[in-house]
This record gives sequence, structure tokens and C-alpha cells, in this order.
Amino acid sequence: MAEDIVALRWEEPQETGDGPVLVLVDQTRLPAEEVELLCTDVPGLVQAIQTLAVRGAPLLGLAGAYGVALAAARGFDVDEAAEQLSSARPTAVNLAWGVGRALDAFHAAGPGEGAAAALAEARRLHEEDARGSRAMGRHGLELLSELVPGGGYRVLTHCNTGALVSGGEGTAFAVVRAAHRAGELRRLWVDETRPLLQGARLTAYEAARSGMPYTLLADNAAGSLFAAGEVDAVLIGADRIAADGAVANKVGSYPLAVLARHHGVPFIVVAPTSTVDLQTEDGGSIEIEQRAGSEITEFSGPHGLGVGAPQAGAGLVVAPLGTQAYNPAFDVTPPDLVTAIVTERGVLSPVRGQGVREMASGKNWRETDHSGEHSEFDGAMG
Amino acid sequence: MAEDIVALRWEEPQETGDGPVLVLVDQTRLPAEEVELLCTDVPGLVQAIQTLAVRGAPLLGLAGAYGVALAAARGFDVDEAAEQLSSARPTAVNLAWGVGRALDAFHAAGPGEGAAAALAEARRLHEEDARGSRAMGRHGLELLSELVPGGGYRVLTHCNTGALVSGGEGTAFAVVRAAHRAGELRRLWVDETRPLLQGARLTAYEAARSGMPYTLLADNAAGSLFAAGEVDAVLIGADRIAADGAVANKVGSYPLAVLARHHGVPFIVVAPTSTVDLQTEDGGSIEIEQRAGSEITEFSGPHGLGVGAPQAGAGLVVAPLGTQAYNPAFDVTPPDLVTAIVTERGVLSPVRGQGVREMASGKNWRETDHSGEHSEFDGAMG
Repeated sequence: MAEDIVALRWEEPQETGDGPVLVLVDQTRLPAEEVELLCTDVPGLVQAIQTLAVRGAPLLGLAGAYGVALAAARGFDVDEAAEQLSSARPTAVNLAWGVGRALDAFHAAGPGEGAAAALAEARRLHEEDARGSRAMGRHGLELLSELVPGGGYRVLTHCNTGALVSGGEGTAFAVVRAAHRAGELRRLWVDETRPLLQGARLTAYEAARSGMPYTLLADNAAGSLFAAGEVDAVLIGADRIAADGAVANKVGSYPLAVLARHHGVPFIVVAPTSTVDLQTEDGGSIEIEQRAGSEITEFSGPHGLGVGAPQAGAGLVVAPLGTQAYNPAFDVTPPDLVTAIVTERGVLSPVRGQGVREMASGKNWRETDHSGEHSEFDGAMG
Repeated sequence: MAEDIVALRWEEPQETGDGPVLVLVDQTRLPAEEVELLCTDVPGLVQAIQTLAVRGAPLLGLAGAYGVALAAARGFDVDEAAEQLSSARPTAVNLAWGVGRALDAFHAAGPGEGAAAALAEARRLHEEDARGSRAMGRHGLELLSELVPGGGYRVLTHCNTGALVSGGEGTAFAVVRAAHRAGELRRLWVDETRPLLQGARLTAYEAARSGMPYTLLADNAAGSLFAAGEVDAVLIGADRIAADGAVANKVGSYPLAVLARHHGVPFIVVAPTSTVDLQTEDGGSIEIEQRAGSEITEFSGPHGLGVGAPQAGAGLVVAPLGTQAYNPAFDVTPPDLVTAIVTERGVLSPVRGQGVREMASGKNWRETDHSGEHSEFDGAMG
């Protein structure tokens, strides 16, 4: 068994006395190379976030919190650092949330205690995330057993939602791992996830390390799998969940939701409650990051050619010079196409605004509320 | 204005006396390089077909017919050549159809006349295809004006259906060009079309040469365009149309059909009647070509790195070594998701088995039959 992936860790080198560093797995170079990035300041971390060296909603929350702790420990302007980190990418709400938690801890601490408090808060988030990941795995597996009688699940997933995005085993991928451990994963269908191929590069890497039965496909080919009856459930993560239950996630998620509905297949979103943003009223209010067209017009391999690098010209030119591209990083799935949202607190199904608020706030929320009540999905179960 | 693309031509070099050659644009190297392939025998042509140097349903029909003529002119075994050509790729029915037409002409001719007869038949097909392409452009534009009142069309297309696949301007792309010439093309949305990027490489190349307003996107991002109301119609080609009206086309077409239906957008298939195969009863009976997994697990650029080459190891490795991939080249869209089929004979809408038979055979078929009768689409027009 391969060692567990540690996507991000805090180190305090004793010898040099140089101050702490944040060590990240450089996700742009996987699976070809396992390379670590050492961040010693916030601009470096912001660059790692923008180039997707570090990515995925829960991990961005941790990176934001540790970034604040790093700025504090090294004596930089903490408020300015927090501002830069929060705005590094617009769609994943976890980033600003993680920054906010560490920043609050920094300001609440006594004189000279801010750096230690920010770091303690970042570590608390890290542990919460690992714990939440285990809980999502458990709740998600229980939900699968309800929705897909007979076990032996064939799960389709999109983008990467595993240990690389988490302090634990991830979100949707944590459910897949729980199913695999239970001997109930018949097949993991891995969307390659254009343009940056997080499925082909990262999810396939994690699936291979875990010894799962997995098969890669062009995102386009998912329709053929649905039509052939080869998909029992779609499991994806989320970058932001609006108050009405609309889900922003990696571009290509919404087409899967439409296909899943057309074929009566459950479409399940797995995310920590920190991904819910009650300040965002509905799907239409979610800001969608538009990325450089060169991600589409050029191909940048995983060999350190600069996948996701914001500057053009790093990759092989695929399209004619001068070609313009439309490249939204995320899309939005309306709540009526989401069969269930699984968080560390349990399962919400059907997905409605009131339930989202209760789940996110924890008020009036009981884990058992959902049981046997997948009413929106009933019609499609046949 | 750039010169028209000539995807395939027959040459008889006078100087060398070496016998005729079939000259093909090598579509695996576009848009980076404009390179021609010279085929002097059928095995070479079969390889060009299998590596997708020559591709696209109508052009495969021409290649098949000229291939028979080439074998005849150079004194090879014509029946064996026909057999090899017909089975080079399984899904596009036009290939075997073109081979059959030239072979019939070869056998029907008097002694010593076979080669000339096969070539004459290939040339007849070539002219028919160019004429058919113009007719499809005309019928398709008329249909657009009925379905999308107000003009200024925003058309989404998938794969490549232009002059590179045709003796004329192509199929779906011929309609797009007709709209552009009429000043009614507001935007051509070009799916990149994974895994071999025929959209990014070939359709973008043709759109750029024609001076169209076009924008490239990852196939995944089409859902976002539909959701934003940015698509007025989907126009695609076909590799085989079954007797019930089911359409086999480049993988990724079916998900677009489902999205189009979900959003009430017309989904229009444009293909010559030679694409209709009345021997294939329904969609489930269409043989779907499965291609090498290395097209997904590796990336082969358009720089002569061997896009579509059947041998693995030619490209950049993207996924972990040992990764298995599911790589169907085509998918099947059931007739109830197809708003209309446009052929050189007119428009069939709604798409039902009887109409398909009448259109394909020409019996009881009147071009005007379709007018004002898009009944299956009525509900979705609002």
C-alpha cells in the first residue's frame, strides 16, 4: 500500500532558523513527477493557488488559513496577506472562509500571541477537515446503499476530490474510498476533466494508489456510459453551494447532472458545510472564474510544461493562432438536479433552501432528518 | 480570402508514368502544418483512414471509391482492395457505400474498361457530394430561419463537418457557411472535441479561413452556454443514420442532444442520404468503433506527433502508467432527441422511421413535406 498523500504540511526547519514554510505537493506535475513546492511568503502561495499547484475547495480553505499563519509567523502584514489570499480565486468559498477563520484567531489573540493563534486555528481546520472527510465517507456510503440496492457500485466522478484536496481523504472521493474498503466499488469511471485533466492526472493517480478498479474516459464519453446503463451514481465535489442549494463545481458537472436526470441516475454532491455560502442567495449569484483561453488553445502536459500557468505560450499550440476560447472554470447545477448533498453533518435530500440553511448552520438539523425521504428522486428510480 | 480546401484529389503525373496517386490533406497535422499525403496503394490508404489522416463520413465515401479506382488503375486485386477499404473503420456507412459504388461500376464495365469506369464513378460521387453539400447548406439555412426567428444565429457544433470531410463545403458546416454568407451567423461555438480535437484543430481552422466569428470551448463548457441561453441551435453531422432515425456521430454528440432537449434548443443533424443505412434497423444495431485507450491516456499534439496513431507511446503521457481507458469513437442519439435531419433532398422533421425510409429511397419523398411540421419540437420552442 502506497503512503497516504499529504497535500499540504507546515514545517519549521530547526537548523536554519529561517522561519516556517508551507510545503505543498505541486499538483500541476502529477502524475509524472512528485514534486514539492516550498512557500515562504504569501505572494508565492497566491501564485501556487492561481496556477492550481494547490487546488480543490477544502484544501484551498486550509491553504488560506496556513497562509495567514505564515504571514503572521514571518512578520508580514497579516491583513494585507489575508486580503491577497481571499481574492486569489473567486469561486471556491472555502478559501476566504479559511482565511477568515485564521485571521479572526490572529486578531482575537493577546499581544504577541497572534501568530501562534493563527497557526493553531489552521491546524484545527486541518483536523476538522480530516474528521469531516471520514464522516462524509460514512454518510455517503450509507446513502449509496439506500439509493443503489444490491451494492457493487459503478460510480462516475469528475475532476479530483481526493486526498489531494483535503486534510483527509477528500469529499466525493472519500465516499468512493469508503465503498472500495467495503468491497462495494465495482468500477470508478474517471472523467478526464478538460481542460486541465485533473481526472486523468490526479484522480487516476489516487485511484491507482488505492488499488481501485478504475477506467478513464473523455468527458464526452460519459453519455455513452449512461446510455449503456453503466453508471449507478454520479459523485462530485463542490466549490460553492448557494443558499438555495445550487452547486458550483468544475465545469462539466452540470452536463453530467442533466444526463443523470435524463437517465434516472442519482447525482450526489459531497462537500463540507464550509462550502455552503448562505450569503450567496442562488446559483445565478455565484461568481464564475473565467480562465485564460490558452488552457484550451494550447496543450500543456503534466511534465512541468506549466499546466494552468496563466501565461500563454507554455504549451503545444493546438488551435489556429488567434483563436479565442470560452473557458469558465466552473458551472452551476440548479438544486432540482441534485439528488442529495452529503456533508460531514449527514445527507440533505431533497435539496431545498430551508434544509441547506439548517444543515449549514447546524440549527434544527438532525442527521437522521433525511432518512427515507429522497422524494425528488422517487420518480426516477424505476 | 484563402483558397478553398481540397481534402482529396486524384492525380496522374505525366512525367513519371508511375500511375495515378490519391493526394490527401493530412488532417492529423492541421492546423500546425499543411502537409499532403500521397497514396499509391490501398494499404497506404487504409492506414491513412485508420489514423484519421483522412476522416469524416462523406470524405470516407469518396476515399473508398477512389481507393477502388486506384487499385484498378494500378493493377491490384480490386475485390481484395474493396474488402480492405470497406472494413478499415466500422461505423461510418459511407465508406462501404463509396467502395460499393465504384466496385459495381468496375464489375459492370466491359473488358479493359473497369479502371476507367471505377474512376468515373468516383468522380461522379465527388461531384454529387459537392452538389449535395450546396443543397444541404440551402435547406439547413431555410430550416434555421423557421426554427430561430429573427436571424443572427448562435450555432454550436461538434467535431469537424466542413470542406475537410467533403467534396464541397461539408455537411453541418455547409449550413454554417451558408448562414455566414447570408450575414446571419452571429457566433459559431466550436466544441474542441476530445480526444482528437477535431474541433480545435480542424473546425477552428476552417472557421478562421472563412472569416467567421467563432469561439472555441472545452466540450464540457457547452452546458454553461446552454444554461446562459447562448445557443440557438446545435448543428452536427452523422456517420450513420439507422432506419429508425437514430444517429451515430462523434462521441459527445448524444450529451449535446440531451442538453439541447433540456434547454429547448433545436438539435439538427446534417448529412447526405448516403449516410442513411436502411439495413441498420435501429440505434442499438450500430457498431461503435472502440479506439485505443492511448488516445486518452496520452496527448499527441498536431505537430506530427501522431494524433490518432494506433500505436501507443507516441505522445505525452498524461495519466498514470497502466491506466485503462474507455474510448468509443462515436455515440448514438435516439430519433426522439433529433429535431430534424437535413439532407441534400430536404428536411425531415419530425424524425420517424417512415420518413427516414422515404427520404433515403427518394420514394414518396417531396422536399416540401416537412414545411411547418416540426411537431416534436413545438413544445420546446417557448
